[in-house]
Amino acid sequence: MSVSSTYGVHSEVGRLRKVLVCAPGLAHRRLTPSNNDELLFDDVMWVENAQRDHADFVNKLTTRGVEVVELHDLLAQTLAVPGAKDWILDRKIVPNQVGLGLVDDTRSYLEGLPDRQLSEFLIGGLATNDLPDDFRSDYVNLARESTGAREYLMPPLPNTLYTRDTTCWLYGGLTMNPLYWAARKEETLLYKAIYQHHPDFVGSTVWWGDPEQDWGQASFEGGDVMPVGNGVVLVGMSERTSRQAITQVAKALFDQGAATRVVVAGMPKLRAAMHLDTVFTFVDRDIVTLYPTIMDAVHTFTLMPSDRAPGVEVRDEGTTPFVEVVARELGLPSIQVIDTGGDVYQSERQQWDSGNNAVALEPGVVFTYDRNTLTNTLLRKAGVEVITIVGAELGRGRGGGHCMTCPIIREEVDF
Amino acid sequence: MSVSSTYGVHSEVGRLRKVLVCAPGLAHRRLTPSNNDELLFDDVMWVENAQRDHADFVNKLTTRGVEVVELHDLLAQTLAVPGAKDWILDRKIVPNQVGLGLVDDTRSYLEGLPDRQLSEFLIGGLATNDLPDDFRSDYVNLARESTGAREYLMPPLPNTLYTRDTTCWLYGGLTMNPLYWAARKEETLLYKAIYQHHPDFVGSTVWWGDPEQDWGQASFEGGDVMPVGNGVVLVGMSERTSRQAITQVAKALFDQGAATRVVVAGMPKLRAAMHLDTVFTFVDRDIVTLYPTIMDAVHTFTLMPSDRAPGVEVRDEGTTPFVEVVARELGLPSIQVIDTGGDVYQSERQQWDSGNNAVALEPGVVFTYDRNTLTNTLLRKAGVEVITIVGAELGRGRGGGHCMTCPIIREEVDF
Amino acid sequence: MSVSSTYGVHSEVGRLRKVLVCAPGLAHRRLTPSNNDELLFDDVMWVENAQRDHADFVNKLTTRGVEVVELHDLLAQTLAVPGAKDWILDRKIVPNQVGLGLVDDTRSYLEGLPDRQLSEFLIGGLATNDLPDDFRSDYVNLARESTGAREYLMPPLPNTLYTRDTTCWLYGGLTMNPLYWAARKEETLLYKAIYQHHPDFVGSTVWWGDPEQDWGQASFEGGDVMPVGNGVVLVGMSERTSRQAITQVAKALFDQGAATRVVVAGMPKLRAAMHLDTVFTFVDRDIVTLYPTIMDAVHTFTLMPSDRAPGVEVRDEGTTPFVEVVARELGLPSIQVIDTGGDVYQSERQQWDSGNNAVALEPGVVFTYDRNTLTNTLLRKAGVEVITIVGAELGRGRGGGHCMTCPIIREEVDF
Amino acid sequence: MSVSSTYGVHSEVGRLRKVLVCAPGLAHRRLTPSNNDELLFDDVMWVENAQRDHADFVNKLTTRGVEVVELHDLLAQTLAVPGAKDWILDRKIVPNQVGLGLVDDTRSYLEGLPDRQLSEFLIGGLATNDLPDDFRSDYVNLARESTGAREYLMPPLPNTLYTRDTTCWLYGGLTMNPLYWAARKEETLLYKAIYQHHPDFVGSTVWWGDPEQDWGQASFEGGDVMPVGNGVVLVGMSERTSRQAITQVAKALFDQGAATRVVVAGMPKLRAAMHLDTVFTFVDRDIVTLYPTIMDAVHTFTLMPSDRAPGVEVRDEGTTPFVEVVARELGLPSIQVIDTGGDVYQSERQQWDSGNNAVALEPGVVFTYDRNTLTNTLLRKAGVEVITIVGAELGRGRGGGHCMTCPIIREEVDF
Repeated sequence: MSVSSTYGVHSEVGRLRKVLVCAPGLAHRRLTPSNNDELLFDDVMWVENAQRDHADFVNKLTTRGVEVVELHDLLAQTLAVPGAKDWILDRKIVPNQVGLGLVDDTRSYLEGLPDRQLSEFLIGGLATNDLPDDFRSDYVNLARESTGAREYLMPPLPNTLYTRDTTCWLYGGLTMNPLYWAARKEETLLYKAIYQHHPDFVGSTVWWGDPEQDWGQASFEGGDVMPVGNGVVLVGMSERTSRQAITQVAKALFDQGAATRVVVAGMPKLRAAMHLDTVFTFVDRDIVTLYPTIMDAVHTFTLMPSDRAPGVEVRDEGTTPFVEVVARELGLPSIQVIDTGGDVYQSERQQWDSGNNAVALEPGVVFTYDRNTLTNTLLRKAGVEVITIVGAELGRGRGGGHCMTCPIIREEVDF
Repeated sequence: MSVSSTYGVHSEVGRLRKVLVCAPGLAHRRLTPSNNDELLFDDVMWVENAQRDHADFVNKLTTRGVEVVELHDLLAQTLAVPGAKDWILDRKIVPNQVGLGLVDDTRSYLEGLPDRQLSEFLIGGLATNDLPDDFRSDYVNLARESTGAREYLMPPLPNTLYTRDTTCWLYGGLTMNPLYWAARKEETLLYKAIYQHHPDFVGSTVWWGDPEQDWGQASFEGGDVMPVGNGVVLVGMSERTSRQAITQVAKALFDQGAATRVVVAGMPKLRAAMHLDTVFTFVDRDIVTLYPTIMDAVHTFTLMPSDRAPGVEVRDEGTTPFVEVVARELGLPSIQVIDTGGDVYQSERQQWDSGNNAVALEPGVVFTYDRNTLTNTLLRKAGVEVITIVGAELGRGRGGGHCMTCPIIREEVDF
Repeated sequence: MSVSSTYGVHSEVGRLRKVLVCAPGLAHRRLTPSNNDELLFDDVMWVENAQRDHADFVNKLTTRGVEVVELHDLLAQTLAVPGAKDWILDRKIVPNQVGLGLVDDTRSYLEGLPDRQLSEFLIGGLATNDLPDDFRSDYVNLARESTGAREYLMPPLPNTLYTRDTTCWLYGGLTMNPLYWAARKEETLLYKAIYQHHPDFVGSTVWWGDPEQDWGQASFEGGDVMPVGNGVVLVGMSERTSRQAITQVAKALFDQGAATRVVVAGMPKLRAAMHLDTVFTFVDRDIVTLYPTIMDAVHTFTLMPSDRAPGVEVRDEGTTPFVEVVARELGLPSIQVIDTGGDVYQSERQQWDSGNNAVALEPGVVFTYDRNTLTNTLLRKAGVEVITIVGAELGRGRGGGHCMTCPIIREEVDF
Repeated sequence: MSVSSTYGVHSEVGRLRKVLVCAPGLAHRRLTPSNNDELLFDDVMWVENAQRDHADFVNKLTTRGVEVVELHDLLAQTLAVPGAKDWILDRKIVPNQVGLGLVDDTRSYLEGLPDRQLSEFLIGGLATNDLPDDFRSDYVNLARESTGAREYLMPPLPNTLYTRDTTCWLYGGLTMNPLYWAARKEETLLYKAIYQHHPDFVGSTVWWGDPEQDWGQASFEGGDVMPVGNGVVLVGMSERTSRQAITQVAKALFDQGAATRVVVAGMPKLRAAMHLDTVFTFVDRDIVTLYPTIMDAVHTFTLMPSDRAPGVEVRDEGTTPFVEVVARELGLPSIQVIDTGGDVYQSERQQWDSGNNAVALEPGVVFTYDRNTLTNTLLRKAGVEVITIVGAELGRGRGGGHCMTCPIIREEVDF
């Protein structure tokens, strides 16, 4: 029986057993004021301090008994598996990416690297001036004439920091997500390499998604997805997660008996509300924290299995508030809501600073950024234990603890 | 022998025999101030006047003996070919595009339409509120919750107006181009339908490109491509046309004996200079019009066939001006240059208004917009016959006569 | 008795007797794709055609019996009045504007020009390279090192095209408006020169405003202002017209017995709705055309004279629609509303293209742009006579017939 | 003899004796993601941590023997001086700012406040909902209908954090600067109140500037200004500091015998290079740190006294590097240059993070942000003592230690 057969995420707040994170690194050293917008960051980072703060987060998770795995590590371990390196390089080092005439040199160089260093380039990107002289032909000049992401032989992937988005464990299986922005599309292939080759991940059930297919208008990001328990999955329909994907995932989950309800939060398209988990997260079995300004504008739909084609039925919940629909589907009499703290200025700022982006260790125990002092105080007054992490650098890409964690094993909770 | 065996474009200024255009229509009626940026237009159009001005352009071409074919017509004729309608709908009306639960209704509706109307929807887009009540399920509400291009069941393709970009005839064959921006990617599939099914186009030689493949960083747009004769192809390496594509196309042309030289203009990335033909076009055998502010910043490379892998050799032309390299490759002692007319204000404005975007009827006879009076006067003083078309509406997407024409048969010129 | 004692605007639709316009000219020749945003234009113009279309507008006004005066002409006539040239140059050619060391040379050059040419530079701007060699010192190099508006010795004022905004005749007197954007602030001084020196304008009553004072947050633009009759003035409270100005103007009008009511339309801040007259104008005694998407979001207040300081009372009209409040204040049983024509795409496009920006010749006879065919048709069906003018170039700064006219004599209508 | 007669700044690196700073406070609590751009901040701050880090900076200055005065304190002390409160409120609480009908209530409320709290509102802004119920009339509704800065009865002034810009001590006197952006214009009036009323500041010599005058195109910001000694003043001609101001200041300094040379750095207009001190500062008598990418593009001019009107002569330094001109004018054989540290990514990032924005305590001892580790290391290797302060929050408005300090007494250095 494979390791991965024990994997699964059965709630948003049940005991977290195993989680996947990605440390800041080379990709963030590529960020500058002129490219950070294109790479979806609002500002540049002090990478060393971001690494320190991330290590502290990992340490706090570990100390509390969570097994933490890290993406660079997993990828390096994957590269050591016979056949895996070729699998990846066959897909990454092709004329459509590095350009004709640079394929052979680039591949030669990368094949000669230690697995750990290759893992760093796969995530951090390979610039033309990373190529040593021995591997440089006249074609390199052509490449340097270009600018932006195409200057790279492999693009930097700084948003891997937010492991939540790229894959989602939903109950006993996962989705491999087609991400919305061009700057992130390449992330999912690295995960496929891990799930196909890494001994701890081989054999995992994939409900939906394959980075080697073209998904058209169907895009899906884990920050919008929450397997809350009781067979229910919440999904934000947002800029980044489309109805074309949501309905397909719902069907895949229903057909494979993985879930019985998908509650869709139709969200306004705003950068501040890029994912559902930036404005709404669970902090206990029946307590959520949310940003009312945006959540009050949500239009809710419920997707259910159906005997008729295409196997999914849609119910328009009209004006019923999202939180009420969620309570109903979980069989809870009600859900306690803790709003973003402070006055109109402070609450807007705290939402922006990931104040509602809590990730639970277990029911009633969550991680959040230190800077959201007012929201943290409200959570504590409600009896929630709040463990803080430093957000000064990590938060600049607009993601908090929930975004930076991809739970792999999380227990269920009773309703 | 097929009709298409006579097709081919052997120069930029030789006698134009047959050309493909696309009339403004439903897609442009979809443009509004809130969506035009996403759809790559700077402003909205008065569609009826744009149609009038386009019809006048077509009429002037026809009167001068050019056979003009129009995209909506070709597509409607294609739909009448047995199997063609299914071929298209199988690829367009899929869950990744229209969304699960809307596939069957949408297809039923479209299959019941006359070919001409279906052709209009394929180019003009299909909005959810275009679906008659009989074809509307609860899923439509989910769709209307979304906004932007995804609101559409098929996206509007207003940039089809610029037929130059989507496919290019280069000597005896063509390329089917992977376009850069998401708003245009769907165009190429419609051309593939025509080239696979329309009796006049079946059998054409395709050098490179297939809209059903994923081309990664390789994007290629016809506005950057000029088969100038003597086995030479000029290509702008721009925001929209990447080295990853250029080198592949060069290899495809060299391997198939279609060309012997590709001269690459490494361009600055600016919206004003989105394509080579917005700042540089031929108006006679050895006369060009160009915008010096941008062309002076071009860095030139020459690609040549090579015995060594990958079969293409790169020469960095250093500080040699682009026009000088072009003259050398064409075997011309020199090329006469006509700059954009007027003072610093006027020339910037005329370049923006497609002042350098001339398209030749034959050597020394070109079409340009009426509004670029100063550049037109300079061309006339140089002995070039200038036939003007009205640009008040057509030019608002930043394209002129060169952009709006895809030559299918153009004769060679002597050098 | 002075000429100006006959001036006055007593309604929005009464017989128009005299109107002030400004022809496109040098200022518009300064527009380029790189500066047009800063100068508040969405696109560049074909200036010659804009001039042709403007001349046609003037001709249609004249033919219908309206006396039309033009800003360049008035300014040239003003310059001929003894003392007026000095008055202007004393205020424009100062170290804070042209820079120390350039004052004397610049003034010498300008003083030597014919009045007409000086008028053109005052409106069209004076660039450093307009200075002939005889008037150039080393200081010019310092100036050319700068860019943007500061490169000018006098800035270009292309928005003078929209004479509606800079001054407003409200019943028997006028306001000299402090304009919102830096690009327009200099306009009002030219009007003050005319009203202080031109024989036809000397002696006019000024209710409020003086371009030689600093107005802080108080900004006021005529596109937001409508003296509809019955002692009522409508004012849009918009991005460009602030409550700090509106309340002061109301007090000035009430104190001087010029008006008895100011109805304020609290508008959303959007470029599409920059002024009230871009979404709402009168076309007959009791008929208006409006853009519902924006007008439905208006929050209305009524300002009335009061015995208590500061002499103005505010009534919050709550959810009562703006049109209803206007009807009440005019003593009309109701006002007929003609919405922007067409479907959701067309109406958004027509509003953008000044579809609701009608200017009346007399009750039931209006000028609008030709391109808004659907709204024009609705107006005609309602019995309104619509005279069209060409908007292809004139409309690119987002202004129509109402924006381009500053009525000086307009008769009242009966209510 | 007044206290202020001892004031004066005689170099960029001589012993710093007295300095003016402004602690983060209410103004920064007003910052939100939706208003921070308008208020010139790139991101919101964690205000409490910014206060902590600022207090640490002050503490380090004090510990090293510098007398530090703080703006809120000075303003509160000023308000206690008879007549000063009226002087300020007469100028701030006027119809042009707070709006007619709100003047009396607002003034009543403010007059009843303790000096310290009034000082906080003067800097932090007064929102309509800061007014207690007793002071609210119907006019408040009108105000709340507006948005943005005009919603305030007094605007927040978060850029007071950068005390460097608003006034500059240049040798024995100061300039009161007309600032460029609307969001900062109100700052200078508060300084005038202090310099006119505060016992420690009364009697200071003002070379140039008065916030109660309109300066047109003449804007001047202290971040562009450096009194380096030897009668020389360096000035960046930038987006924010115009030639119209520079030449006037030069004349004022020359005429009053305050300086003998002004060396002008003609800078490219980029947000990254908003002020000269963001890309160039002195760290020792003959050592500077600079960002080559921008400084290499500087065009240098020297202004000198002249017998001929207007009393200032301009020398165009052509291609002579700025640093070379500065050395010449200081009589130094050469100046050692320490570039921003790191590779192309790192140096762009460190410049952005104020890596070159050092402020000297004395020759060879400077304060910089901790995050610029590579530049700090290069400075240390050159023998400069670097004292770091935390930049995680303070740096988000794009200013470092140089920007946050306005030296009032700094000794000269020998050349």
